[in-house]
Amino acid sequence: MLMKRAILIILDGLGDRPCKEFFGETPLEAASTPFMNYLAREGLCGMMSPLSLGWTPESGPAHFEILGYHPYYNFYPGRGPLEALGTGEKIKEGDVVFRVNFATISKGVIIDRRAGRIKDVRCFEKDLRMEMDGIEFILKAGTEHRAALILRGENLSSQLTDSDPRKPNRKPKKVRSLSPEAKRTAKVLNKYIERVHKILENHRANRERKRKHLLPANFILLRGAGTYKKVEEFERRYGLKACCIAGTGLYKGVGRFLGMKILKVRGATGGKNTDLHAKFKTASKATKRFDFVFLHIKGTDLYGHDGDAVGKMNFIQNIDNAMRILSKTKALMVITGDHSTPCSIKDHSGDDVPILFYGTGDMRRDDTLAFGEKYCETFGALERIEGKDVIPEILNLTNRGKIIE
Amino acid sequence: MLMKRAILIILDGLGDRPCKEFFGETPLEAASTPFMNYLAREGLCGMMSPLSLGWTPESGPAHFEILGYHPYYNFYPGRGPLEALGTGEKIKEGDVVFRVNFATISKGVIIDRRAGRIKDVRCFEKDLRMEMDGIEFILKAGTEHRAALILRGENLSSQLTDSDPRKPNRKPKKVRSLSPEAKRTAKVLNKYIERVHKILENHRANRERKRKHLLPANFILLRGAGTYKKVEEFERRYGLKACCIAGTGLYKGVGRFLGMKILKVRGATGGKNTDLHAKFKTASKATKRFDFVFLHIKGTDLYGHDGDAVGKMNFIQNIDNAMRILSKTKALMVITGDHSTPCSIKDHSGDDVPILFYGTGDMRRDDTLAFGEKYCETFGALERIEGKDVIPEILNLTNRGKIIE
Repeated sequence: MLMKRAILIILDGLGDRPCKEFFGETPLEAASTPFMNYLAREGLCGMMSPLSLGWTPESGPAHFEILGYHPYYNFYPGRGPLEALGTGEKIKEGDVVFRVNFATISKGVIIDRRAGRIKDVRCFEKDLRMEMDGIEFILKAGTEHRAALILRGENLSSQLTDSDPRKPNRKPKKVRSLSPEAKRTAKVLNKYIERVHKILENHRANRERKRKHLLPANFILLRGAGTYKKVEEFERRYGLKACCIAGTGLYKGVGRFLGMKILKVRGATGGKNTDLHAKFKTASKATKRFDFVFLHIKGTDLYGHDGDAVGKMNFIQNIDNAMRILSKTKALMVITGDHSTPCSIKDHSGDDVPILFYGTGDMRRDDTLAFGEKYCETFGALERIEGKDVIPEILNLTNRGKIIE
Repeated sequence: MLMKRAILIILDGLGDRPCKEFFGETPLEAASTPFMNYLAREGLCGMMSPLSLGWTPESGPAHFEILGYHPYYNFYPGRGPLEALGTGEKIKEGDVVFRVNFATISKGVIIDRRAGRIKDVRCFEKDLRMEMDGIEFILKAGTEHRAALILRGENLSSQLTDSDPRKPNRKPKKVRSLSPEAKRTAKVLNKYIERVHKILENHRANRERKRKHLLPANFILLRGAGTYKKVEEFERRYGLKACCIAGTGLYKGVGRFLGMKILKVRGATGGKNTDLHAKFKTASKATKRFDFVFLHIKGTDLYGHDGDAVGKMNFIQNIDNAMRILSKTKALMVITGDHSTPCSIKDHSGDDVPILFYGTGDMRRDDTLAFGEKYCETFGALERIEGKDVIPEILNLTNRGKIIE
C-alpha cells in the first residue's frame, strides 16, 4: 500500500545527555513510551543533526532546515517577524520586527528574563503602542512572557544587535547599529525601550503583581531583529497541502510564514500545561484533510531549560500516551526534535536528536527496539542524517519524490 | 599487500523495499548469493544515497556522482548527448541531442512508451535522417526501443522541454522552448516529429510488425535535451586508466564522455537476456590492463520497473553466479546500485542502496554477514555514505589517496 500523507511531530529540545537521575539514561530513554517504541520497532530510525554535526541551533533555523528550507540563511527572516506572524498580527514588507521578552530588572540588572514566567502580557499592549520620531511602534503579546515588537516607517533597517544578554544577573545591552543605515533606527529604539521601562514600572498590572509577591514585568528585552520578506510557500515548493498545529507563537509564525494553514486548538498553550490530547486529536483529524501535518510541542524544551530531567521524562510519557490516538492513521509518522536541550546544561546543545519514520505502507524497516538516543544511534538504519534530509525522505516514503534527471 | 586496481560493479536499480513475495525481504536479501555474501563478510559495507538522502535520481546523474563528478549538475550534459555517445556516433560541440523512445500511439494517445520493447530500431535510421529548415536531423539507434536524435546546425539551443510525458495513456507533449533563443529549434523539431510519425505509420517494418501482432513503433518520444560539451577526463581527474563494460547506450555514453575505453562484449545487450558470463569474463581480463574497470548491468532495474520481484531475485542470483570468475582477481571489488527501483512502485525511489568494498589486500573489514539492504544498514561499518564518497574511498583503499595539505 502506498502512503501519500505525512505527519511531522517535532518535540522541541527532545534530545538530551545522560542524566544521573536515570543512571546515565536520557529522559527519553528513561521514559515509559510503549507507543513510540512500537513505532521505532516497526519503522525506520536514525539520528539527525538539525543543521550539521555539532552545530547548536535556535529553534527557528532548525525548523527551517527540517521543513526543507535549506540552507536556512537564504530563507530565515529572523526571529522577530516569525514571532509577530505567530501572534496573528499582519505585518508588511519592510517592517522591522523583534522578538521580545518581558523581563524583571532591579537596579539596572536583570533578575528574571521571563518576569517570573508571567502568564499573559496582553494587558500592556495598548499602553506601549506609540509613535516616536516618525517610527510607529506596535507591541503585540504572544504566549506567556513572549511578545513581538514591530517598527513601521520610512528607511528602517534591521541591521541591529540584541538588547537581550540571554543570561540573568547582567545589565540589558543597548541596541547597536551594524550598518550606517541602521543608526537612526537604533537611536529611536533605545529611546523607546527607556520609555517603556518607565511606563511598565508604574503600570497597574505590575503594581498588582508586586502585591501578590510576583516579579513585575518591568522591562522589554529585544532579540532577533528581522525585516519581513516573502518566501516560496511550502505547498508550492513540495506539492504538499500543509497545516500547522502549535501553541507557541514562533512555530505558528513559521507555519504562517511558509503558507501553512494554522489550526486552532483549544488548550494548546505552548507551555508545560498544554492540552496534549487536544493537539493530537486535531492532528489525527487533520491527516484526512491535509497532505502534511506539522505538529509542534514545546514542553520538552522548557523542562530542559529548567534542568528538570524528571519533569522532562514525565512530559514525554504524557506525549506517548496522548499520541496513541494516531495509531489508526494511514499517514507516515515522523517524530523528532528540533535540537537537544540537555537538562545538565539547561540550554540548547549541538547533540544530534533521534528521529523515526513509521507508516503502515510500503517502506523499509529496521531493528531499533525503542525510541531513544542510544537505540537510534546503535540500531537506526538511517544512521546520521541532517535536518535538510527530512523532507526529501518524507517525499520518498510517501512516493512523491521527483526524479532528478 | 597493497591493492592498486579496482573494479566498480553497478547493478542498476539494485535497491528495493520489502516484498510480500519474500515475507518482507527484498529481492537482494531473498536471493541466494553466496559469492556476494562472502565479499560482504570479508569486506567493508554500508548504505549509499546516490545523490542525498531521499532524493530520487535518474541513472545519469547517479552515475556522475558515483563516478566522482560531483555535483553532477556541473558536469552532466543531459541524457541526449550520453545516449548518442553510447551509440558510437560522433557528436560535435554545439550539437543538440535528445534521448528517444520509439513508442506506439493510437488515436493520438500513447499506448506503449517502448513499442512493445521492440528489439531493434536500426531499420528506421536511414529514413528518418533529413534536413529541415537548415537543421540536420540524425537519428541513431541504440539498444531495443532506445535511440538518440542529433540536431546539427547554426544557432541551436537545448533549452527545450521533453515531449515524452513519461507515462502511458497520455498524449505526447509538444516540445516547448524555455528561452527565446530556443524558439526556432522547438518549431522545426515539432515539425520533424510530425513528419517522422507519418513516415513510421507507413513504414514496411511496422507493417511487418502489425502482421505479427506486435505493436508498431510509430512515434518518437523525446527527452533529456542537452548540448554537447567536453569535461575533464576520468584518467586525468583521478589518475586511473579506465575502461567501461556496458550493454546499454546510456552507460557506454557515460564511459565515453568521461574518456574511458569502451570494451565490446559479444552478447552484452543491456537487457534481461544479456550474457552475464561474457561481461564478467571481460571484466576479469580488464583488471590486468586497466587501473579501473566500470562494469554496468541493467537487468536488475528492468525487473524493478516491471514490478517482477521474483524475476529480479533470479537475475541477482545469475549475477552472483557469473561474478565468481572474479574470485581470483587482485583488484578491489566494489558492488552497488545507482539507485533503488522497488518492485512495489515500479519506478526509481529515493531509498539508499547497499554497497560493499572487498579486496584481498590491506584494508579494514566489518561484520556484515550477507549482502543485502538490512545487513548493510545494520552492520556496515561505512554507515551511510553518498555517491560522491565512492571514488575517494576507492582511491583510499587502492592506496592512491592524495594528501590534502
